[in-house]
Amino acid sequence: MTFRSEHDLLGDRDVPADAYWGVHTLRATENFPITGTPISAYPHLIDALAAVKEAAALANEELGLLAPAKAAAIVAACREIRSGKLHDQFVVDVIQGGAGTSTNMNANEVVANRALELMGHRKGEYGHLHPNEDVNLGQSTNDVYPTAVKIATVFAVRGLLRAMAVLQDAFGRKAVEFRDVLKMGRTQLQDAVPMTLGQEFSTFAVMIDEDRSRLGEAVELIHEINLGATAIGTGLNAPAGYAESARRHLAEITGLPLVTAANLVEATQDCGAFVQMSGVLKRIAVKLSKSCNDLRLLSSGPRAGLGEINLPPVQAGSSIMPGKVNPVIPEVVNQVAFEVIGNDVAITMAAEAGQLQLNAFEPIILHSLSESITHLRNACLTLAERCVDGITANTEVLRATVENSIGLVTALNPYIGYTAATGIAKEALATGRGVAELVLEKGLLPAERLAALLRPEVVAGSDRPLV
Amino acid sequence: MTFRSEHDLLGDRDVPADAYWGVHTLRATENFPITGTPISAYPHLIDALAAVKEAAALANEELGLLAPAKAAAIVAACREIRSGKLHDQFVVDVIQGGAGTSTNMNANEVVANRALELMGHRKGEYGHLHPNEDVNLGQSTNDVYPTAVKIATVFAVRGLLRAMAVLQDAFGRKAVEFRDVLKMGRTQLQDAVPMTLGQEFSTFAVMIDEDRSRLGEAVELIHEINLGATAIGTGLNAPAGYAESARRHLAEITGLPLVTAANLVEATQDCGAFVQMSGVLKRIAVKLSKSCNDLRLLSSGPRAGLGEINLPPVQAGSSIMPGKVNPVIPEVVNQVAFEVIGNDVAITMAAEAGQLQLNAFEPIILHSLSESITHLRNACLTLAERCVDGITANTEVLRATVENSIGLVTALNPYIGYTAATGIAKEALATGRGVAELVLEKGLLPAERLAALLRPEVVAGSDRPLV
Amino acid sequence: MTFRSEHDLLGDRDVPADAYWGVHTLRATENFPITGTPISAYPHLIDALAAVKEAAALANEELGLLAPAKAAAIVAACREIRSGKLHDQFVVDVIQGGAGTSTNMNANEVVANRALELMGHRKGEYGHLHPNEDVNLGQSTNDVYPTAVKIATVFAVRGLLRAMAVLQDAFGRKAVEFRDVLKMGRTQLQDAVPMTLGQEFSTFAVMIDEDRSRLGEAVELIHEINLGATAIGTGLNAPAGYAESARRHLAEITGLPLVTAANLVEATQDCGAFVQMSGVLKRIAVKLSKSCNDLRLLSSGPRAGLGEINLPPVQAGSSIMPGKVNPVIPEVVNQVAFEVIGNDVAITMAAEAGQLQLNAFEPIILHSLSESITHLRNACLTLAERCVDGITANTEVLRATVENSIGLVTALNPYIGYTAATGIAKEALATGRGVAELVLEKGLLPAERLAALLRPEVVAGSDRPLV
Amino acid sequence: MTFRSEHDLLGDRDVPADAYWGVHTLRATENFPITGTPISAYPHLIDALAAVKEAAALANEELGLLAPAKAAAIVAACREIRSGKLHDQFVVDVIQGGAGTSTNMNANEVVANRALELMGHRKGEYGHLHPNEDVNLGQSTNDVYPTAVKIATVFAVRGLLRAMAVLQDAFGRKAVEFRDVLKMGRTQLQDAVPMTLGQEFSTFAVMIDEDRSRLGEAVELIHEINLGATAIGTGLNAPAGYAESARRHLAEITGLPLVTAANLVEATQDCGAFVQMSGVLKRIAVKLSKSCNDLRLLSSGPRAGLGEINLPPVQAGSSIMPGKVNPVIPEVVNQVAFEVIGNDVAITMAAEAGQLQLNAFEPIILHSLSESITHLRNACLTLAERCVDGITANTEVLRATVENSIGLVTALNPYIGYTAATGIAKEALATGRGVAELVLEKGLLPAERLAALLRPEVVAGSDRPLV
Repeated sequence: MTFRSEHDLLGDRDVPADAYWGVHTLRATENFPITGTPISAYPHLIDALAAVKEAAALANEELGLLAPAKAAAIVAACREIRSGKLHDQFVVDVIQGGAGTSTNMNANEVVANRALELMGHRKGEYGHLHPNEDVNLGQSTNDVYPTAVKIATVFAVRGLLRAMAVLQDAFGRKAVEFRDVLKMGRTQLQDAVPMTLGQEFSTFAVMIDEDRSRLGEAVELIHEINLGATAIGTGLNAPAGYAESARRHLAEITGLPLVTAANLVEATQDCGAFVQMSGVLKRIAVKLSKSCNDLRLLSSGPRAGLGEINLPPVQAGSSIMPGKVNPVIPEVVNQVAFEVIGNDVAITMAAEAGQLQLNAFEPIILHSLSESITHLRNACLTLAERCVDGITANTEVLRATVENSIGLVTALNPYIGYTAATGIAKEALATGRGVAELVLEKGLLPAERLAALLRPEVVAGSDRPLV
Repeated sequence: MTFRSEHDLLGDRDVPADAYWGVHTLRATENFPITGTPISAYPHLIDALAAVKEAAALANEELGLLAPAKAAAIVAACREIRSGKLHDQFVVDVIQGGAGTSTNMNANEVVANRALELMGHRKGEYGHLHPNEDVNLGQSTNDVYPTAVKIATVFAVRGLLRAMAVLQDAFGRKAVEFRDVLKMGRTQLQDAVPMTLGQEFSTFAVMIDEDRSRLGEAVELIHEINLGATAIGTGLNAPAGYAESARRHLAEITGLPLVTAANLVEATQDCGAFVQMSGVLKRIAVKLSKSCNDLRLLSSGPRAGLGEINLPPVQAGSSIMPGKVNPVIPEVVNQVAFEVIGNDVAITMAAEAGQLQLNAFEPIILHSLSESITHLRNACLTLAERCVDGITANTEVLRATVENSIGLVTALNPYIGYTAATGIAKEALATGRGVAELVLEKGLLPAERLAALLRPEVVAGSDRPLV
Repeated sequence: MTFRSEHDLLGDRDVPADAYWGVHTLRATENFPITGTPISAYPHLIDALAAVKEAAALANEELGLLAPAKAAAIVAACREIRSGKLHDQFVVDVIQGGAGTSTNMNANEVVANRALELMGHRKGEYGHLHPNEDVNLGQSTNDVYPTAVKIATVFAVRGLLRAMAVLQDAFGRKAVEFRDVLKMGRTQLQDAVPMTLGQEFSTFAVMIDEDRSRLGEAVELIHEINLGATAIGTGLNAPAGYAESARRHLAEITGLPLVTAANLVEATQDCGAFVQMSGVLKRIAVKLSKSCNDLRLLSSGPRAGLGEINLPPVQAGSSIMPGKVNPVIPEVVNQVAFEVIGNDVAITMAAEAGQLQLNAFEPIILHSLSESITHLRNACLTLAERCVDGITANTEVLRATVENSIGLVTALNPYIGYTAATGIAKEALATGRGVAELVLEKGLLPAERLAALLRPEVVAGSDRPLV
Repeated sequence: MTFRSEHDLLGDRDVPADAYWGVHTLRATENFPITGTPISAYPHLIDALAAVKEAAALANEELGLLAPAKAAAIVAACREIRSGKLHDQFVVDVIQGGAGTSTNMNANEVVANRALELMGHRKGEYGHLHPNEDVNLGQSTNDVYPTAVKIATVFAVRGLLRAMAVLQDAFGRKAVEFRDVLKMGRTQLQDAVPMTLGQEFSTFAVMIDEDRSRLGEAVELIHEINLGATAIGTGLNAPAGYAESARRHLAEITGLPLVTAANLVEATQDCGAFVQMSGVLKRIAVKLSKSCNDLRLLSSGPRAGLGEINLPPVQAGSSIMPGKVNPVIPEVVNQVAFEVIGNDVAITMAAEAGQLQLNAFEPIILHSLSESITHLRNACLTLAERCVDGITANTEVLRATVENSIGLVTALNPYIGYTAATGIAKEALATGRGVAELVLEKGLLPAERLAALLRPEVVAGSDRPLV
């Protein structure tokens, strides 16, 4: 193995000759042996960093601060990275001290060394193009890193939004499929009044639809960036016009409607948009978990449970109990939800711990947000495709629970009168017999009238939408 | 003490003769001896319950379901409650099982007994007007309680928004007052580059301004109610037109732009709007806590701290250390923030625990949300009035830290050149002398030029807004 | 209303003439209008403060620092407070800045003024006995407040331990009562293998028993105090021998095996024992909540649920649905659990936020810990007395689910062979018939043998303890 | 690529011919595409699974249930795994539904196929040795998985305990090194009274020492296993003597003092020991974070901060600000602490969500616990080696802050009298001069006496231990 020597504030170090990263990255990998997960595991972040570096180079060239040849080489290197190349060169640990400086320097070094090669030089010949003085020109970690994290978050959220739409559609199709399936509604786990299974599934769909709206609003806030703020938001060392030019180029490169924050000092230290995003992810997790709890409850059995619906079997449930099938897909979604809720606390603490002009703890925010978004996305797709799509209803069992219920009497109240209804309820409780059966036996309603009152559309409420 | 006898599903019980509440309330007080805090401690909730009962009575009268005399008596009783009377009759514990049934029944009983008196009857003569059959007509706890909680939340949030505006103004005034006070900015607690104290205070103001926007958005979601849903959202036992009529009356009574949820089954079980609201309250807490951390840090000293600003003394700090004054106001705000963040976890868990057609745990959501909103409001006002308004700056100390700083060299870089700047930095570090002093001594810049470069507006960045 | 004038660092203020508290307390009530809950709502804390003041006076007298007449008056005043008097004079808000200084000064002033009266002087005549110089002699808020919070916590925890024992006994009695009640065990909500209802209830009892052990261990850590540390743990201004003497007196007064921390500097800033205590309370909450979830699930129905057990009705469940009874007691316990888990996060953040030689945020720790302990205590008692004691089993339904189950075949596997068992399972699934029925029909086992294999002691596992 | 066909409850599937895992593992990898992290990333877990399988085989052989040849092959396969081989065959995602069934089946299949090879058969020839009937004999996921998770946790915790000892030693050495360095103590960030820097560092050491004790206690609870419980704790299908034999073998293999839970039904569903462990990890995180906050605060500067200590530079702090060095090591530790605190919430929710006879959510508990333990371990080592070991003190600056402080007057109070002390304090505040200087100037104390009073051992408190 051959090496090249690089120099920084602390002295000289040997760097592997074929590494695109340099001495700053080397030190960072030694300083942060925490998770073993390099930032290359966050491809949206790598792409976003490359986009920021490209935009900065174009702005610097436009303002006459960077020679066209250098700018062209930087831009070309960044585009290679954005096309998926060199990601393995982003080796610093995702959880790192220094407010993301090591991530930024990793990017500066990889871009510089690749640009040097494109210019016909060798890696490490920084006299021709320097990681700090050229690639990082007019920038600071404190504006580059938050901007890149935001862009990465926007792209990740898009994937989540698509997955949520897939899951919403899956629930919506079941809501239509089950629109005529009568069942007992329950409050506080106690039998309440009749409804349709379609209504039950429509609530799952509607919850996701609302959460998509909230997520869409939260992601809007993420479009506000602080590029041009440099170290603390005063724009020191960035010339007039730089912030706007860089923003414009970055918006073009990413296709995102980015805006520069009105108060860059505030924007440089603020993590509010991340806290808001995490809060919405937590809301999504809460709803998903509740829906999965319901699916597991409704499919409990097969003999000693509610047995209202059947989840499609996707794997054997037990080695010791023949034939047992478990609700493993909802269970994995529940666990992702718990993780997201825990991540929200970590993000909250990191945001609260920011001091004065900077929050030094954005790396854990990046990590936790990315994990929450990606795992939620995977959970939604898995739930849709491996569970919801294959759900079937035990229609006859469900209808029987309605006809056999005491709660049915609430629905008959207006037709047979409160006194008769109370009498029926008491007799049903005492004898274990069904309300429908007793009503017919006592001639309180003709059979066809009773059947009419139990039609799904009546039970569901005529003016209530199914989906 | 005299009693009247009342009857319910479980049998007869003696109720104090002068109590407006009845047997349901009595049992609830026995069943839930948890916090010792009655719902009367939540006046917005009591007012909201009365508003819902009034709106329902008007809707029932309009639809011909309730005799005008009964409706008039119910409306009159509700208005008395909303004018502040009878609040002491709301005695059930705020944390209760039953999804709020005991709170709803407490309201039904108080309204009924007061209405009975207004009709010339005695308390408990429910043959003339019944808590369930008349006051609760067409309603269920499952639509009444969430609707009342939402209205109470909207009113409480208004108070918080006003308090936040007061605090924002206080910070904003200081931002203007300190606009010319030069200081060192810090990142990661290490000296960075110069800025103004006005910029620092403007960030506090801007953070609150943004949070007010987020809170305003979150409260919009709270205007969606499920009145008319009855037990599970199918509207069973509520006639056609009831939901819309009740909503219209309730909007008139409260002055709020209430809307009925499109899918009432979903709305009856959903706590998403509360989770969102709590998430935004948590965001506010995070920012407030960060700002208070900064205030405590900047005012540390008086000799062995940063000593940049002085908080107004509001009480003696120590019995043992003469003359010590502590940052007690920011400290109490920090603690409220921790409480709000903890409450968010409690609300999250309660929301996640909802099952099937209802969330039985809304009482703890009400309690935690109310606490968060009220304490944040009190914290904002206290912080504004007892701390921020009286803050002063140690202007000379601050300027000296800039002139004495190494970081200043970053600002001089474009004017004296990178090589000279590095030399100055090295010498300053080695000798402990100031950069400004060295630059002048070496004749690198004339005194007036240096002074010009240190003018606050230059340091702050000419195109950066102060507030 | 008449007033007396008092003086402090900030100047003169009028205090109501009949108030035992003084100028420090007055300012604190103005500075912290946060929760509206005075510290008098925490009687264990008031008693603990009085105990600390009494112990300090005795130590100071013993060391010749305090005149016997003064010491006697202070001791007498403290004993009055510990007998329940003057609690209404403890008026500062429980959530306060200043690390508890206002609570300590409130105690110093009340004790001083009552002692003055006992000495024949008037309130406010501090020349005869001074809140700071005499009552607070050799002390600092920074050792008094944590010591008092610890003593208060120990006493509160004792109440919780007793309540947990009551609940454990209630579950234990049911475990015995239901020892012969056969039922299906469930994993992942799916039918698994047979067990007894007694075993199910024994798990609830065992969980509490284990949690009592953990709580007992956590409370041991709370016996370590830092009295004598004064301001930062160096014991400045407290003479040699003071710490030991004060500890000895305090141990005698409280009856607690208190020990002085080995490193007082560490002990003065450390909140580890509170974090540990809160962590154990959270563990208790998790288990209690799980048990209540199970109770609600097992009692779901009456027709469309599991219907295995019946919770005693304690109030009508619904105004709109006649005859509905809900599991309101488990529900309120769930909510307390959520609150405790949220409080743990608040306590965690407060503990983490301590800086250098002191944690200024102990007031929120006191508040949250007290709330968690007290509410858990109330929840345990309510659950035992209003729910568990009255639970009954639907024995026949439960036995039928076993005989009708597919899972039964797992238990018969060793006796009828794997091949036959698989055949029976398949036929049962296909036809909906019961395994027991099919086994008998096919003559695979004689009826008495099958009955023997289904004896509760066999199903439960012969060597498994019931409680 | 060649395949072999395997069969399960859901039908036939092709498995890569060279895979040691089989059809159950294959389906699991398809069902849980959540994190992308296979269980092989948790080597302690893989080793623990192999140890459990080995112990079970030995117990089964001992009881005559498993042929010696089969047992020998299983044992040999397990030992290969424990020696580090075949870990890459553990491919199921760490977050999975099914309560760990897929992890257990992955282990059963890998062990079976390797054992088959050792017996001279080919992979998949399960007629000779079956994953379920032989490798899993007498076991259930519900006792295997929790037992393996506990063993893995014990081994991971040992690594953490060692790392904590390293960090404690590092702090302890600094406590000794700085024992004579006088400095001002601070409460609420305000100057308080003098102490030594050695005392400050001793608190960091003592905190870790106490946390090690708590962690040691928590890990004791983890030694209680439920092996032999099978599906729900009744031991169904495990013969008498099996539980004890398996425990004995497992204790021998692992070298751990394992005990079988007294109530296996309770133990099978209980996650209390994990909640307790996570609570202690959270406590450790809180303390570590507080210590790192202090290190960052004390090293703030170099010019405009406290500047009391210097952290060793480990990387350049900024590309834009020459010479800036940041406290990156404490910062990364803070972030790990936030992560651990978030994980505790996830674990809490997972534990609370267990239902009836099993907690289906142990996989996320495993994942979160492992992450917390491993990252804390890495953080402690990094903090010790890359930060604490190289810390230096600015001794002269520190002494000057004491001599210049107002708080010094508190220490002189007993020697110059309260009245003179107050006068000195006032003059010092008004003039900005130092207390020591004024005391000498006014002849209140001779220079040598003042120096004696400021000797570190006096200031520190003569009877206070340094470490």
